Amino acid sequence: MTSIPKPSEATGAVETAVTYLREHDSEHLAQLDDFLRLESVSADAACADEVRRTAQWIVDEMGRIGIERATLHETSHHPIVTGEWMHAGPEAPTVLVYCHYDVQPADPLEEWVRPPFEPRHEDGRVYARGSGDDKGQLFMHLKAVEAWMKTHGSLPVNLRFFFEGDEEVGSEPIERFIDEHADLLRADVCVVSDGDTFDDDGTPAIGYGLRGIAYWELRVHGPRQDVHSGQYGGGVHNPANALVEMLSQLVDDDGRFTVPGFYDDVRELTEEERAAYAALPFDEDAWADETGVPQPMRGEQGHTLLERLSARPTFDINGIWGGYTGAGAKTIIPAWAAAKISTRLVPDQDFRKIEKLVKDHLESLAPPTVRAEVNVIHGGAPAVTPLDHPGVAPASRALEAGFGKAPLFQRSGGSVPVVAALDAHLGIKTLMLGFANPTGNFHAPNEWMSLRNIRDGMVSIVHLWHELGAMRATDLRSGEDD
Amino acid sequence: MTSIPKPSEATGAVETAVTYLREHDSEHLAQLDDFLRLESVSADAACADEVRRTAQWIVDEMGRIGIERATLHETSHHPIVTGEWMHAGPEAPTVLVYCHYDVQPADPLEEWVRPPFEPRHEDGRVYARGSGDDKGQLFMHLKAVEAWMKTHGSLPVNLRFFFEGDEEVGSEPIERFIDEHADLLRADVCVVSDGDTFDDDGTPAIGYGLRGIAYWELRVHGPRQDVHSGQYGGGVHNPANALVEMLSQLVDDDGRFTVPGFYDDVRELTEEERAAYAALPFDEDAWADETGVPQPMRGEQGHTLLERLSARPTFDINGIWGGYTGAGAKTIIPAWAAAKISTRLVPDQDFRKIEKLVKDHLESLAPPTVRAEVNVIHGGAPAVTPLDHPGVAPASRALEAGFGKAPLFQRSGGSVPVVAALDAHLGIKTLMLGFANPTGNFHAPNEWMSLRNIRDGMVSIVHLWHELGAMRATDLRSGEDD
Repeated sequence: MTSIPKPSEATGAVETAVTYLREHDSEHLAQLDDFLRLESVSADAACADEVRRTAQWIVDEMGRIGIERATLHETSHHPIVTGEWMHAGPEAPTVLVYCHYDVQPADPLEEWVRPPFEPRHEDGRVYARGSGDDKGQLFMHLKAVEAWMKTHGSLPVNLRFFFEGDEEVGSEPIERFIDEHADLLRADVCVVSDGDTFDDDGTPAIGYGLRGIAYWELRVHGPRQDVHSGQYGGGVHNPANALVEMLSQLVDDDGRFTVPGFYDDVRELTEEERAAYAALPFDEDAWADETGVPQPMRGEQGHTLLERLSARPTFDINGIWGGYTGAGAKTIIPAWAAAKISTRLVPDQDFRKIEKLVKDHLESLAPPTVRAEVNVIHGGAPAVTPLDHPGVAPASRALEAGFGKAPLFQRSGGSVPVVAALDAHLGIKTLMLGFANPTGNFHAPNEWMSLRNIRDGMVSIVHLWHELGAMRATDLRSGEDD
Repeated sequence: MTSIPKPSEATGAVETAVTYLREHDSEHLAQLDDFLRLESVSADAACADEVRRTAQWIVDEMGRIGIERATLHETSHHPIVTGEWMHAGPEAPTVLVYCHYDVQPADPLEEWVRPPFEPRHEDGRVYARGSGDDKGQLFMHLKAVEAWMKTHGSLPVNLRFFFEGDEEVGSEPIERFIDEHADLLRADVCVVSDGDTFDDDGTPAIGYGLRGIAYWELRVHGPRQDVHSGQYGGGVHNPANALVEMLSQLVDDDGRFTVPGFYDDVRELTEEERAAYAALPFDEDAWADETGVPQPMRGEQGHTLLERLSARPTFDINGIWGGYTGAGAKTIIPAWAAAKISTRLVPDQDFRKIEKLVKDHLESLAPPTVRAEVNVIHGGAPAVTPLDHPGVAPASRALEAGFGKAPLFQRSGGSVPVVAALDAHLGIKTLMLGFANPTGNFHAPNEWMSLRNIRDGMVSIVHLWHELGAMRATDLRSGEDD
């Protein structure tokens, strides 16, 4: 049992820990490469062993740096890893850190400059699948703890860790895990690092909203097998045609879902929030240039691009396939065609309700000339943490200490199911401190994270434990009724 | 130089030739298997050598059975094979026989019960890619000639052969070939065997119309690479969404193309033709059952199913692809999405005009938020041979002699570009005598042809040369002004 460093004596303590990070920089980056080499693709059954090895790697590493009770838990899917260091005393806050160690599939492989699991350092960046989303950030948390532990043998706060291996495939096991293992997770606040900074110029961000998600696969079946389009064309309803007809009816000319009830629970932005969005520095043309699109989409009428990117629901076809896709021509009517589709949800949409509404609506759109099959693939709830939460100010100071700039506040377009689940099951609010680069090719080929964000982020985390350690647990919990 | 068998003496001659076919049946079927084993997939560049070996196989076989000047001609694509036997005398008709020796790609391979190029004999059928379309029919023509030559050393007509290796990929080389080699092709009438009988119960058919085709690939480009649907959803116009939006606008709620000018040159069916269609025995429910669809498509309003299957233009998505198509979920906006689309054309639509109209229309439908690319893949003209052509009656008698039933007359939904090209360049009308089975999985897995159709078809061809040999060349040509 070690004593909590008092605020007065702590500034020097923080500096010592930061110096440790600086002195071990190249060793840490080499270790990050080892971690990124593990192919923890949760969507690919062939990678299941490698996903498990990744979980074990984290357990081993936690043990090495002094985190206690490091444990690999079996679940219905991939393992969950927990661990803790609870010796900061009963008055000190307990913080739960959440990251995920699974990554997106790497295809299309041919678009990667180097293979996705062979980390490449170039232009001040680490390129690899998972460098930003989210193994790089998980690793930063481990190293920030190591810095405190190696230099002081203790941490300013009680820390718990919750590392998941199914985030990229819908986080199916987490609700049950939270229910069954509340004793391992209970905390005054949660810190989730699975997002990005405000820009690539070192402006950090605190996320105060996340979109949820609902995801389906629609498969349309036509003739028993592919048939000749000359012999059957005009008589057999081509399932690829039918698929296109059905999908095209989901969104109207104003960019709004036609699904009945879809907008019923959407929490509209307040005037203050809209004003805050409007005040954010944002260059639409530069943004479009960066993505490579000729111009931003028209999208839902009545909302600005920034609002649509994080505070409004979306509709995306994530994949579509059927029929002949080789070279030249093949004159068939395919036996079937399919699409993966998803929507990003906003508060207070209920993903389970939306899953059903869209499924029912798609089934109602299916013409009697084909057979349509709609399967729910996964869902996650949207979440919002209030800007006046007592953890926001210390987190802001920590980020400013690390990055040299005050953070901006943003609602994020992505989805992290655990945030809503922790709130619902354990009443834990979440501070979203993301360190990845906003243009770092999340879910895309040549994913990267800048060395600057890695380094400044680790320093911020070191400061964060210091800042939160200066608070009393009861003060931090006071946000929970918001 | 042999004398033409006179009609009076010929009945016995036909019987001798038919007996020859019966006696060599198993030997011929084994030889057909050899021919079907050759992987003459014209669409696949990796098969180019095998396509050439197939052409050479035909040249060798022609030489063996006494067809003269058997030649493999180089073209811009795959070889064309010609040959002739021109010793029936100047009064006797000259007939050009056209078939194609290339086949459709075999994928999806996993749906074949046996590999597509390992012929399987089962339930009175030969299963193999090309068994019906069109190597089986080409082979039948060779064997019918062999039967005449082996039993009489001569044929009742002057015969020319025109065997193509690019039919399944748009017949690009044939127009130039017809222009440059008119001397090898000139004839009083052409017989094309590349279609099917009226049903699978041994009712033969004479085709008097073929649909044309136009075929495009549409590719829609969005962001530079796949991007995260949470970060970019609502701001980046998803190219798969845009593709679906564009394709869904091509056909209206009445099943008609929205492309301006598309119907300008469509020759409407006459009252007589519509009455003839209505009189054909056709069970819509049985037809739907056979294809496996729940019910026939609604299609273009104001036209019956049979009319839509052969006398009206169609719109089919032959293939569509883009984004993530693996297991589970990947939450991306894909960098691009593409579709192969085609329309079957009817007289008097000009495929080159339609190619441009649709390309222009698609480009006009592309929103400014994506980049759309439309490429013409191939086209072919529709064709009609009048029912009062002087070759129709003798062909009917020949089919009745082979199948034991009078033929029905049908317009066919498919496309054979050579038919329109021979008419346009050399004024040669075509009799379409198809021997494949209508449900024989053309262009699909487990393609098959019945032994009955193979045998009755070969007998019909033996009779056909007898029937046409009883006519004078000038009488057969009289149809050319229709």
